[in-house]
Amino acid sequence: MEEKIKNAIADNKHATNVEGKKKSPLWGDLEGLLQHKIDNKTKPLGSLGVLEEIALQVGLVQNTLSPKIENPAHLVFAADHGLADEGISPYPKDVTWQMVMNFCAGGASINVFCRQNEMELKVFDVGVDYDFSENLPVVNAKIARGTCNMRKEPAMTIGECRAAMEVGCKAVRVEVAKGCNTVACGEMGIGNTSSSSLLMHKFTGHPIEDCTGRGSGLGDKQLDRKTRILKEISEKYDPQSAEEVLTTFGGLEIAAMTGAYLEAKKQNMIILIDGFISTAALLTAIQFDASVKENCIFCHSSDEKGHKLMLEFLGVKPLLQLGMRLGEGGGAAVALPLVKSAVNFLNEMSSMEDAGVSNKE
Amino acid sequence: MEEKIKNAIADNKHATNVEGKKKSPLWGDLEGLLQHKIDNKTKPLGSLGVLEEIALQVGLVQNTLSPKIENPAHLVFAADHGLADEGISPYPKDVTWQMVMNFCAGGASINVFCRQNEMELKVFDVGVDYDFSENLPVVNAKIARGTCNMRKEPAMTIGECRAAMEVGCKAVRVEVAKGCNTVACGEMGIGNTSSSSLLMHKFTGHPIEDCTGRGSGLGDKQLDRKTRILKEISEKYDPQSAEEVLTTFGGLEIAAMTGAYLEAKKQNMIILIDGFISTAALLTAIQFDASVKENCIFCHSSDEKGHKLMLEFLGVKPLLQLGMRLGEGGGAAVALPLVKSAVNFLNEMSSMEDAGVSNKE
Repeated sequence: MEEKIKNAIADNKHATNVEGKKKSPLWGDLEGLLQHKIDNKTKPLGSLGVLEEIALQVGLVQNTLSPKIENPAHLVFAADHGLADEGISPYPKDVTWQMVMNFCAGGASINVFCRQNEMELKVFDVGVDYDFSENLPVVNAKIARGTCNMRKEPAMTIGECRAAMEVGCKAVRVEVAKGCNTVACGEMGIGNTSSSSLLMHKFTGHPIEDCTGRGSGLGDKQLDRKTRILKEISEKYDPQSAEEVLTTFGGLEIAAMTGAYLEAKKQNMIILIDGFISTAALLTAIQFDASVKENCIFCHSSDEKGHKLMLEFLGVKPLLQLGMRLGEGGGAAVALPLVKSAVNFLNEMSSMEDAGVSNKE
Repeated sequence: MEEKIKNAIADNKHATNVEGKKKSPLWGDLEGLLQHKIDNKTKPLGSLGVLEEIALQVGLVQNTLSPKIENPAHLVFAADHGLADEGISPYPKDVTWQMVMNFCAGGASINVFCRQNEMELKVFDVGVDYDFSENLPVVNAKIARGTCNMRKEPAMTIGECRAAMEVGCKAVRVEVAKGCNTVACGEMGIGNTSSSSLLMHKFTGHPIEDCTGRGSGLGDKQLDRKTRILKEISEKYDPQSAEEVLTTFGGLEIAAMTGAYLEAKKQNMIILIDGFISTAALLTAIQFDASVKENCIFCHSSDEKGHKLMLEFLGVKPLLQLGMRLGEGGGAAVALPLVKSAVNFLNEMSSMEDAGVSNKE
């Protein structure tokens, strides 16, 4: 069996250059070989739990018995929301640009977590209503100075939506060119849980009440008001295609994340999914290409109402349940070491045979 | 308020030299000041969830607004169990020494996780029924060549139990001398879930059936047999004091862990608790000093039956639920980055004021 694995490694190196990996006859074999490699480590069968599932998934996505997490990148997309004028967030719209400045200064939670876990952090202005100095470490990819107020008109034009998606695609391609094979996305945009709730409502069919939460900390009365406004908006429009839904209800940063996920799938990357807004962008991406999900590791179950229903809809259980609800993609950044632990045990642990450890009697 | 924090930092530096910190009038103040520091970071209130609780706990234990995780160490204690002769594990007793050899070669999961997360890993032979070469990286602290078969006689003598506890104490003191302030314990010992089940039964009052699980992978019939044997053993003895219970039902490695936890509390360290056997040792330690729990971060909810009941008994919710059940303290090692994330956000994130970010309207 060990010989078979060694041969398969050689074969699989070849197979990575072959189109249509999933349909390759090697694919079925690879799953069995990966499982054998996992099962034959010096540990009781199945005893590394979820880490074993992650190891298997990363091996399958990368089409190898020796997967690697290389140059992981965290892309934060920032944009404003016209709907913020309706007071659906407890924070003023200015917080979007102020937090981008905070990212630049290295003082936000996502800076801390990316520094700690050695993720490259990049911040993109896709549509912040503010002019950043060119000296700041923000990629200027501004499509507009925020979306329109959905209570009055669709959030974006089709052209804006496509341009924002392309920002995400391009951002991923730039990282790939630098040798990155693992990506997470985060966001900053006062008002963007409202967009996410509407996208969730449209793509999962859950009533708007179940999709709407407290965001960055609404009280009961404000939550009722937010829910009423989102219900009104959801009834005002009847977009048909996924692109129309995203254009109508999305945010520029959510469209960029959607584009980033689609490109990351094309590039066969591991995609780390965080909380409510990340998953709303993924639900959108899945409308364009359902296979994106295969590459996703769900990192954290957010405390934002609606996220658990999204995860149930996708049929997935995330790595962490830490009650975080901060955005910026923080749940993905703090979960990265666990993904590395999964890959590392697969690559570095001895087999029962190699270590001379007796198996079950 | 910021001024008050600065003054408090100065005051607390002084307070760390004062006996009886918990009774110091500063303690109450420190909790409020830590909470203020957490709440005033550039994030919605409470939005880092469990990481905020960990930050608060580590700050309180270390009596500072700027806690640090320094030179974390992972101590693995290995010993054999006489009860293994009764076939209560699916693996032969030889696996204990074979796995110690695997630790030495760097090929076990705990080696992988400690390397990844920069934990110092030390392995102690407290009672393995094997003679290790002196050249191997195993600390020779052998008390006996394993415990006695509890079905026939108590596992240890009081003298052996005390000596094993002292091995754990000393191991911790050695790490402290090197600047370590955070410790986890792991174990290797075929048969040690049986000891843990008996300790749990005695210290929590849960019936032996609820305390007994599949260990490294028993089938239904073998589990019934293990449960019957443990029930018989639990009825054979009537130890009174915690020391007598540990002596009768414990393992040499579990006694060492108990000693390590007690010393770590004395040294005011952060203690990372892993799964079933680690928690059994902690339940024992708590009989000697209930305050040990204050210093513990519960890292992982094991899939071994009984662990969830132990955690409920202690009234704690662990950081991770990854379905691991491998022993060696692996759940503590993979959780360390999350503990660091908690400490890092507290130290490194900007405050709302410093970053010029608007607060709630």
